[in-house]
Amino acid sequence: MIAWFNGELLPLRGVHIQATDRGFLLGDGFFETMAANKGQVIHFDAHMTRLEDTARKLKFPLPYNREELKDAVDKVLLGNQFLKTRTALRLTITRGSGPRGLMPPLELNPQVLLTASEVPDHFPSAKVKTVSICRNEKSPTAQIKSLCYLDNILAMEEAHEHGSDEALMLNSAGHITEGSISNIFFVKNDQLLTPKISDGVLPGIMRNCVLETAHKLGMNIVEDSLEPEIIQTCDEAFLTNSLFRVRPIHELDGRLIPSEVWADKILQEIKAAE
Amino acid sequence: MIAWFNGELLPLRGVHIQATDRGFLLGDGFFETMAANKGQVIHFDAHMTRLEDTARKLKFPLPYNREELKDAVDKVLLGNQFLKTRTALRLTITRGSGPRGLMPPLELNPQVLLTASEVPDHFPSAKVKTVSICRNEKSPTAQIKSLCYLDNILAMEEAHEHGSDEALMLNSAGHITEGSISNIFFVKNDQLLTPKISDGVLPGIMRNCVLETAHKLGMNIVEDSLEPEIIQTCDEAFLTNSLFRVRPIHELDGRLIPSEVWADKILQEIKAAE
Repeated sequence: MIAWFNGELLPLRGVHIQATDRGFLLGDGFFETMAANKGQVIHFDAHMTRLEDTARKLKFPLPYNREELKDAVDKVLLGNQFLKTRTALRLTITRGSGPRGLMPPLELNPQVLLTASEVPDHFPSAKVKTVSICRNEKSPTAQIKSLCYLDNILAMEEAHEHGSDEALMLNSAGHITEGSISNIFFVKNDQLLTPKISDGVLPGIMRNCVLETAHKLGMNIVEDSLEPEIIQTCDEAFLTNSLFRVRPIHELDGRLIPSEVWADKILQEIKAAE
Repeated sequence: MIAWFNGELLPLRGVHIQATDRGFLLGDGFFETMAANKGQVIHFDAHMTRLEDTARKLKFPLPYNREELKDAVDKVLLGNQFLKTRTALRLTITRGSGPRGLMPPLELNPQVLLTASEVPDHFPSAKVKTVSICRNEKSPTAQIKSLCYLDNILAMEEAHEHGSDEALMLNSAGHITEGSISNIFFVKNDQLLTPKISDGVLPGIMRNCVLETAHKLGMNIVEDSLEPEIIQTCDEAFLTNSLFRVRPIHELDGRLIPSEVWADKILQEIKAAE
């Protein structure tokens, strides 16, 4: 696999991170996962807007602008001959090396890595389980795609141990938030419901795209705190992320939810617009 | 600086982490910070017990046993000629490389890095501020010294912006938890109070050592949920970690707390026992 690292194209196995990098030592960095279709990256500007917003929140400057990162994406897709497949792109940015301690150095040296892998174009419907791992809606990092993914790993492991494909996490107030790698939506009486961002939800690019698409399709949309009771009463439920786009949930905490009418309608619209 | 990396002594600047390492990509790892005095590591067995406990919780095997890690510590202290100073040792362990996604690979290849730096033997008393960053007492990772330190970094930055040396974090229920790099203690009517572990507190090695020492000194000890009101009513407050040992707090959220009687008594006992 060919990666792009700080402006250079290199074989991924030849890319090494300094052992003093704060991304490695302290999770002091963030990333974006983007999809590409037949060599064309999807929703690139939306991903860049979120990336720039995160960099601003964490107070570290991006060493490359959108044009340079778009050029990096094109080079990685071309270099890997990922021109006929669906591809997952991961852009990782860390604050770079620093001295011992939590405080960042005054002069930053951010590290930027872009990798790619082939992924399926279609994901089968998912079995989802509410897990014991809880989102911290009171931390600003809940809304940042930071490198600190250990909670999500534990959540995903717990789901897998119970034969599920994805975990559903509640927040400290007991409200529904999101999956370990996805946002969640419910349909009830043709209304689309999803947890509000301030409940501890990552503002997913596909989440936003689904909200826009559902609006266009005439659905009534509710972005609010959601009680777990919705799991027992919804007509439909689905997961979203940039790779899945829309992935129906066929079983949620043991309840079978066979309907995929709206999930399918929204997915077809989103695919057509890519 | 000479580091020990997967069994080899190397100059730190020559140590590089694979870009596919899950510690780097997902914060999937943990660490211990230990102090050494004139070439002798302090509380090594207690650190190893916590390390082994964390490895068990995260379900990944430690590739080295205590004897091998003790040998690594001795080699790093000797290799850096840190035989007459006080030294901070950091032992970092990640789950190693894996394929794309959150689920760890079936065959793990943990990476182990030990670094050292000289640190002062004495820390001046601290100014501390309660910050907006909140600990997630409902996550099992709150009790693990994982690589996911971005919340702590933001907490420390917020404290520094207000001219403080350390941040104090509350949990989602509004109870006092700990600092970004330290545990916290209060003294009130000769009673020693500290937040209980299940409130979202890292079980610090020095925290435990302070509890034992205070018990030996005849203090009454309360490990419980602490309301922020204690900040306004305590007679004394101090921070602990393996490097500080005991560090008095002279100002907490603007309130001056000049007394250091118990902090000093406990510190002298701990130093004498090293």
